[in-house]
Amino acid sequence: MNKQINAVILGASGYTGVELVRLLLRHDFVAIRALTANSHAGELYDRVFPHLGFNSLPGLIKNEEIDWDGIDVAFCALPHGATQNVIKEIPEKIKVIDLSADFRLDSPELYSEWYGHVHFAPELQKEAVYGLTEFYRNEIIEGRLVACPGCYPTAALIQLLPLVQENQIDADDIIIDAKSGVTGAGRSLKETSLFSEVAEGIHPYGVAHHRHAPEIEQEITKSLGRQVIVNFTPHLMPMNRGELVTTYVRCNKGISVDDIRQNFIDRYKREHFIRTLDEGVLASTRHVRGSNFVVTSVIADRIKDRVILITAIDNLVKGSSGQAIQNMNLMFGFDEIMGLEQEPLFP
Amino acid sequence: MNKQINAVILGASGYTGVELVRLLLRHDFVAIRALTANSHAGELYDRVFPHLGFNSLPGLIKNEEIDWDGIDVAFCALPHGATQNVIKEIPEKIKVIDLSADFRLDSPELYSEWYGHVHFAPELQKEAVYGLTEFYRNEIIEGRLVACPGCYPTAALIQLLPLVQENQIDADDIIIDAKSGVTGAGRSLKETSLFSEVAEGIHPYGVAHHRHAPEIEQEITKSLGRQVIVNFTPHLMPMNRGELVTTYVRCNKGISVDDIRQNFIDRYKREHFIRTLDEGVLASTRHVRGSNFVVTSVIADRIKDRVILITAIDNLVKGSSGQAIQNMNLMFGFDEIMGLEQEPLFP
Amino acid sequence: MNKQINAVILGASGYTGVELVRLLLRHDFVAIRALTANSHAGELYDRVFPHLGFNSLPGLIKNEEIDWDGIDVAFCALPHGATQNVIKEIPEKIKVIDLSADFRLDSPELYSEWYGHVHFAPELQKEAVYGLTEFYRNEIIEGRLVACPGCYPTAALIQLLPLVQENQIDADDIIIDAKSGVTGAGRSLKETSLFSEVAEGIHPYGVAHHRHAPEIEQEITKSLGRQVIVNFTPHLMPMNRGELVTTYVRCNKGISVDDIRQNFIDRYKREHFIRTLDEGVLASTRHVRGSNFVVTSVIADRIKDRVILITAIDNLVKGSSGQAIQNMNLMFGFDEIMGLEQEPLFP
Amino acid sequence: MNKQINAVILGASGYTGVELVRLLLRHDFVAIRALTANSHAGELYDRVFPHLGFNSLPGLIKNEEIDWDGIDVAFCALPHGATQNVIKEIPEKIKVIDLSADFRLDSPELYSEWYGHVHFAPELQKEAVYGLTEFYRNEIIEGRLVACPGCYPTAALIQLLPLVQENQIDADDIIIDAKSGVTGAGRSLKETSLFSEVAEGIHPYGVAHHRHAPEIEQEITKSLGRQVIVNFTPHLMPMNRGELVTTYVRCNKGISVDDIRQNFIDRYKREHFIRTLDEGVLASTRHVRGSNFVVTSVIADRIKDRVILITAIDNLVKGSSGQAIQNMNLMFGFDEIMGLEQEPLFP
Repeated sequence: MNKQINAVILGASGYTGVELVRLLLRHDFVAIRALTANSHAGELYDRVFPHLGFNSLPGLIKNEEIDWDGIDVAFCALPHGATQNVIKEIPEKIKVIDLSADFRLDSPELYSEWYGHVHFAPELQKEAVYGLTEFYRNEIIEGRLVACPGCYPTAALIQLLPLVQENQIDADDIIIDAKSGVTGAGRSLKETSLFSEVAEGIHPYGVAHHRHAPEIEQEITKSLGRQVIVNFTPHLMPMNRGELVTTYVRCNKGISVDDIRQNFIDRYKREHFIRTLDEGVLASTRHVRGSNFVVTSVIADRIKDRVILITAIDNLVKGSSGQAIQNMNLMFGFDEIMGLEQEPLFP
Repeated sequence: MNKQINAVILGASGYTGVELVRLLLRHDFVAIRALTANSHAGELYDRVFPHLGFNSLPGLIKNEEIDWDGIDVAFCALPHGATQNVIKEIPEKIKVIDLSADFRLDSPELYSEWYGHVHFAPELQKEAVYGLTEFYRNEIIEGRLVACPGCYPTAALIQLLPLVQENQIDADDIIIDAKSGVTGAGRSLKETSLFSEVAEGIHPYGVAHHRHAPEIEQEITKSLGRQVIVNFTPHLMPMNRGELVTTYVRCNKGISVDDIRQNFIDRYKREHFIRTLDEGVLASTRHVRGSNFVVTSVIADRIKDRVILITAIDNLVKGSSGQAIQNMNLMFGFDEIMGLEQEPLFP
Repeated sequence: MNKQINAVILGASGYTGVELVRLLLRHDFVAIRALTANSHAGELYDRVFPHLGFNSLPGLIKNEEIDWDGIDVAFCALPHGATQNVIKEIPEKIKVIDLSADFRLDSPELYSEWYGHVHFAPELQKEAVYGLTEFYRNEIIEGRLVACPGCYPTAALIQLLPLVQENQIDADDIIIDAKSGVTGAGRSLKETSLFSEVAEGIHPYGVAHHRHAPEIEQEITKSLGRQVIVNFTPHLMPMNRGELVTTYVRCNKGISVDDIRQNFIDRYKREHFIRTLDEGVLASTRHVRGSNFVVTSVIADRIKDRVILITAIDNLVKGSSGQAIQNMNLMFGFDEIMGLEQEPLFP
Repeated sequence: MNKQINAVILGASGYTGVELVRLLLRHDFVAIRALTANSHAGELYDRVFPHLGFNSLPGLIKNEEIDWDGIDVAFCALPHGATQNVIKEIPEKIKVIDLSADFRLDSPELYSEWYGHVHFAPELQKEAVYGLTEFYRNEIIEGRLVACPGCYPTAALIQLLPLVQENQIDADDIIIDAKSGVTGAGRSLKETSLFSEVAEGIHPYGVAHHRHAPEIEQEITKSLGRQVIVNFTPHLMPMNRGELVTTYVRCNKGISVDDIRQNFIDRYKREHFIRTLDEGVLASTRHVRGSNFVVTSVIADRIKDRVILITAIDNLVKGSSGQAIQNMNLMFGFDEIMGLEQEPLFP
């Protein structure tokens, strides 16, 4: 029988933070006990996010004002880099679900190469579990600190891991062309996130140096047992939510597109949130908006032996806060889909 | 104790139809037994709306193929005009919740003046209850045929009826400037609904002859006992959902903006879905997206004795399918908010 | 015969600044000699605005680095408040066209009431000409310092002044419901200008205390010879450019909607940029995007004696930089439409 | 010395048609003599496109009503398939610039394979010149019938042809991930072009069977002298205009990314409309909106020997109507950039 747990959300004034709040408000067994923010500390939550004003929620406080007594789980939705030092201070009996990038890379060298500084909590980095739910369920159940994957790696790895694990594709020839909505950039003030810089246009960013590339490579490398480099090219789209990942792969000898599609179907047939689309139906971000679902199309290219994989997720749900809650459900023995039952919102 | 009821949705291939499906899928006591469409009849529902493909839903059939046996309630989300003849044929023991405009006007003369033809089911028109939930609860509970209000009248009347009923404003000087997202125009093929005709711009439409004007006037007239004409000026916005209604009223002698705000607060304090915003917080469609909520700001104008009322709803939820379900809950003795618990989706 | 003039643009890193550059690049007789910015000083212009990278333009410098020698005209596109002290220092022989709000209000008291501080250049304030081109042509031709109107006042006054001047409407019963694209808020970093705060929604702002209200009132008051207060309610729209102003007026005794439309047509029939639409055609921001044009619909309300005026402009063109150039053309004896010949961009 | 020419536009009620009108109105030496449409025939042009209402333009007539006397050039912006029979009937002395797909493929077999019917004007197909201006200038100058390339092939070929011609890349390993605004789908009524089907989302379409693939392949094949198949995967974006083409290529042995960038720079250094961006600047559709410009970034991938090419165009200008006018300028001896001088519109 389920008992209620008490949660705090660190960094509740950003988009992933408020998405955690939105989803947890519909979870039968989670009480939100504290919400923290930096510059917004001291404010009522519904002044910062009026759309949640129909609920009664704790006001925003500073991280250090949290009373940890009785708390079961902490969600960290803090900026990258800031998280390491904060998590170090959380009492050990409390489970931690981190939505930042701080504990995703398990190699300290890789971390410092891509993030520009030595990791501040290397011992925690060692124990952190990579929270790609469908691939690390046992580790998540037993873990104390779960590092939720980046939004792009979530979509790309759900596409690629089954193929890599079954040795169906050439892992040295993976091209990942990704398109994301603007919430992926967070709520912080950047010129590139202004409405008029984004609306009525598309542009690439971080080409050949985006930090989600080593994260994708880490997991493929682990699966394969040898170092792999992938192409990863993200683009910013004029939409709030949603992420579409179009991946171009080359089949290994003797492997057909039908083999790949069947592998997909088999691998995910018991997964509630993941669906392989019928031939002729193409994945769209509109199919999953506001939900934890993942849809994938598998298509034969006209170039011989090439296959196109197209996956859509909501970057704020399966790409961050939804997957975090999915992991929490595992960690506390709840039904894995609890709080994540909503249908996609279309239009 | 609740027992499950069986529902059919006529016109399930449009936006209000699919919104009914989205919401009813999360209702504990409603089973969707049939879905109808015209040109899409014969198709799987998830081919027409792939975002609901994670569910098992009946395929689309023609209206006349419905097996009415065991059905408790029919939602009609058919085009205006088409509805009257269809509803006439529904077995009498089945409750009918109509989302079209066909039964909103109770005067046959007014109907034919604004819709250009004599009503095809005048006897049903007489028995139809106007489904503005917060104002017709008793009638809805006892009614068989409920005519859900138009999206604009829903927002405008929630603003205006308390003021008119308390005689706080000059009913002959009401100016309603309304802004709606494009789903209000439905999924039918019209040049004016094409993306490139709507994006990056705003335009008025139906100025001084929109059919929601007589509907608003009917209810104000009923409250006041004398004929009232209002200004109603709708504008089309480059967004999917949401409706903002900015209404300009003149206070009657001795009435202040505080009196009006207090009237609002008092009138709706027990209403789950309706909230009067604090001074300084301005209503936005983003506060209610995807939800059945209604938010209103009451602001003193700089012109003496003038007050500005600003109300936001989601046109597809409180403005149509959500209110329809709210009414269904009343008609079948369910908790009024069942199936409508979702938080707004922001961003 | 025209001779070339030399222009500088102060504040060229904002949206009105870059719009001046875009338009002046197509002006046959203006050479852009210097571009200034604050935090972007020292950068190449096409790094800040890559869309103009096909041109050869001066790099961004600080205001104080300008060599005023040989300069004929300075456009000031600086933030409000900053402008006064800067303009004081410009050599007197140079004509100044200001796009900020600093010199629009001619009363020092009104200025300090609405802007919160005593004006820093009261003597310049006295000599400044209000740059609403179609109404102040002679003054502009002879002026040295022209204060270009705000975007909203431009649209609202073009609507209202002919009616007020002919005493056709009740000036104490003017309701201006305005809708603007996001560029109106400039390129500075504000949470409310972030894409995800604006897309898929509409919200009012500055209700009953927006600084464009006293500007509109000043001009109506001047025309009428007595103090007038108007309602002015702006809304922010999910679009880059464009402004739609829907104004509700009450006819004076004996005045019909046809009288008002005819007044409009007569008043503007020789104006290149202003067009009164035929009955049945409704003004849309898409009709004027990217251009200096103004379109207006005049519609009879269903409420007796009420008339609805709907005007669309591009806030960055006729609402600021285009009108500034129109004024420059007058000041230097060029054809008034020079540099402003572009058709609207649709879609 | 230039003399004025007389033009007609067949199919002037669509988006490419009206874009021709917008641009030609600013061309000093072209008079628009007739505009045709099908269902809109008989209407005033400014009723169909009110944004051009400030001009005096001929009303819409049927194709067969054109008086060909004195006409110099016909632009055909008709739907695919319809064009062949129409062009056959145009008097031979009149030059024809076709914006449809009807004459782009020079092989009758390829045409019938991809378009599903035998070509109706095979003799014209033989004489048609492929209007990719920068590559077929001489042929265009001397041609009578110019078939303007598709929007995607324009961008993709400008990227790829210099590389293929210099044998810098493996032509059997070209992956073209393309993203287009909605105007690419035209103004015809399709559910997939409705605002609410497109806004707030992205989706692929025509994957592995889009008709622009054989067009790209034809030109690469011609350059290379052997049959090439490319990957071409288009996506629909929630924006009006603009096209971004991200292409993934593999360098031939000994070729570096710098070789490729230098090839680009050299190949296009005398081309007014084509610009290779500096390292570190990434192509965006916002850089070219409303203009005939083309911008390209050349970036080294992290995968060894792989290069990423990113090109942005405005699909309605360089991708169709602008390039058509560029070709017309060549055909009639005008300056190639005449009528195409406008700067991009940003924001």
